[in-house]
Amino acid sequence: MDRILLSHGNGGKDTEIILQKFIFSKLPENLKKTDGGLGLNYLDDGAIINFDNGNKIVVSTDSHTIYPYFFPGGSIGKLAVSGTINDVVMMGGRPIAMLDSIVVAEGFPLDDLDKITNDMISILKEYNIALVSGDFKVIPSDSMKGIVINTVGIGVSKNPIIDKIREGDSVIVTGPIGVHGSVVAALQYGIDTKLESDVKPLIKLLEIFDKFSEDVHAARDPTRGGLAATLNEWAQLSGKMIVVEEKDIPIPEEVKSITEITGLDPLVLANEGIAVLSVSPDRAEEVTEELKKIGFEPRIIGKVIEPKNKDNRGLVIVRTEVGGSKILEMPSGDIVPRIC
Amino acid sequence: MDRILLSHGNGGKDTEIILQKFIFSKLPENLKKTDGGLGLNYLDDGAIINFDNGNKIVVSTDSHTIYPYFFPGGSIGKLAVSGTINDVVMMGGRPIAMLDSIVVAEGFPLDDLDKITNDMISILKEYNIALVSGDFKVIPSDSMKGIVINTVGIGVSKNPIIDKIREGDSVIVTGPIGVHGSVVAALQYGIDTKLESDVKPLIKLLEIFDKFSEDVHAARDPTRGGLAATLNEWAQLSGKMIVVEEKDIPIPEEVKSITEITGLDPLVLANEGIAVLSVSPDRAEEVTEELKKIGFEPRIIGKVIEPKNKDNRGLVIVRTEVGGSKILEMPSGDIVPRIC
Repeated sequence: MDRILLSHGNGGKDTEIILQKFIFSKLPENLKKTDGGLGLNYLDDGAIINFDNGNKIVVSTDSHTIYPYFFPGGSIGKLAVSGTINDVVMMGGRPIAMLDSIVVAEGFPLDDLDKITNDMISILKEYNIALVSGDFKVIPSDSMKGIVINTVGIGVSKNPIIDKIREGDSVIVTGPIGVHGSVVAALQYGIDTKLESDVKPLIKLLEIFDKFSEDVHAARDPTRGGLAATLNEWAQLSGKMIVVEEKDIPIPEEVKSITEITGLDPLVLANEGIAVLSVSPDRAEEVTEELKKIGFEPRIIGKVIEPKNKDNRGLVIVRTEVGGSKILEMPSGDIVPRIC
Repeated sequence: MDRILLSHGNGGKDTEIILQKFIFSKLPENLKKTDGGLGLNYLDDGAIINFDNGNKIVVSTDSHTIYPYFFPGGSIGKLAVSGTINDVVMMGGRPIAMLDSIVVAEGFPLDDLDKITNDMISILKEYNIALVSGDFKVIPSDSMKGIVINTVGIGVSKNPIIDKIREGDSVIVTGPIGVHGSVVAALQYGIDTKLESDVKPLIKLLEIFDKFSEDVHAARDPTRGGLAATLNEWAQLSGKMIVVEEKDIPIPEEVKSITEITGLDPLVLANEGIAVLSVSPDRAEEVTEELKKIGFEPRIIGKVIEPKNKDNRGLVIVRTEVGGSKILEMPSGDIVPRIC
């Protein structure tokens, strides 16, 4: 292994190995975060920076590449802006500003660039988020095809959400699973479907986080690597076990038909408009009721347990409809379809 | 013109036209900055975000692509981290945190990635800047070659520098001109040279900015588009005229020999380790003395004047050694060598 493989970009185990080797292991602990803040010492969607006077900001960055740039329900522009907004929101931050950096190949159609920036800016307008700075680079056509959009989100938060799932927590998904990944798979495999990507900003969730600030113990948007990656990260970070009920996971029929044709697992497919929450069990029903009121379709899919056997720490278990159970692994190898 | 051209990435007039058309013109004024802050309403290297309680942060982002990735004096890793540090410093911010996003082509040599991240992290260590979050993506080899590194810098500042050159100001460069661009040109043209890139963080300049906080009216690092781009931006933003003396511009002999062979203009070549300052004339000598004490090789190269004729607003004039004068234009067209 002396060259970068596609699988190194899967957002799962292989990416972690590369980052560990080439970045994390080289950084002293005190440079993984700012004083009083949270950074690479605790892997989440973004970082928290504390200022002397108590101000807290949430920052997140992501580089977005997707082919095709346009897909039913969105575009790389909508994806880039929504994805970074969501990373800020998942840490409890209210996004106030964004920075963007567009790297585009020579020869890229200006009409496409126009549509992409329209999509970016219409979301910023809808949610009243300022675009404060940016960069724009062109790469010769012999070195790159297409477009890469990097976005940086900056949010403010009095009480950031620092993912800490607890024993007994109910695990809630705020909507159907596997939709974005299925749409991209259908395009790449040439499958006919009426499905549209779920890509959208999840800013409305901040109402829930405010209202249940003591009871939402963790929140994440299960993008690259899907629900499987999010649940495995939580289980590994906490040393707890997560048990989910297969029958309670909301997988739309259209997603099922695409995954049946392609052999893909809906639980590793990317989602771009839902969140997974880990919530105090006695408030879980109330949280789902409130989520429904603001337009989500939440489901309680499982719970966090303290493993009796320490070998089971960090495991995610799916209880199947026929009464068996299987381990849900952290995604590894090539993620198909590539959706990053 | 229906496709992106290389010249659209020159960081000069052509880039501005693209950004104006596809981004700025679509954004309402109130979304070009945060409340009380500074953003796309005033083009500088980064943005300032004000918080309710008076905290100010400086943020900047840049996507870096350069071929070759390694060059005498540095690498794309050193360039990415230093460049973003410098953008924060040029706004008077003390960098405290960085985020990075690495997009790399499938097949990229891991040894090269190792050297690149070593370079990034050694600068973070030297200047005690935390790396708090990031992203890592792999693109198939049929869509991209090489590596793109996006960096985000976050700094704190009580008194950000908001570039406002004033009539009478002395214009100072903190070191020799055209070095980084010449090194890259020499590599691309196959010219033998002992020159090394000047790429380095300019954090020490914060001492000068603190000491002369009332008298440094503008500060910028003349990277893409070189000294010509910086001076033209200042002149256009202020409506003043800038007159520089050709004989006072410090151009090293090695740079001259490369620009003579290639026909490139040292004034449009990128610099990665110098700054241009616009300073009260009565403090300019003192500023240069202090700069020398901390290791810079400053030169006063010109001054800001109020044009008598309004047609001359925004012009940059070079007075030649033989007594003539010529307009120094904003760079346009393809910038050679590509250094972004």
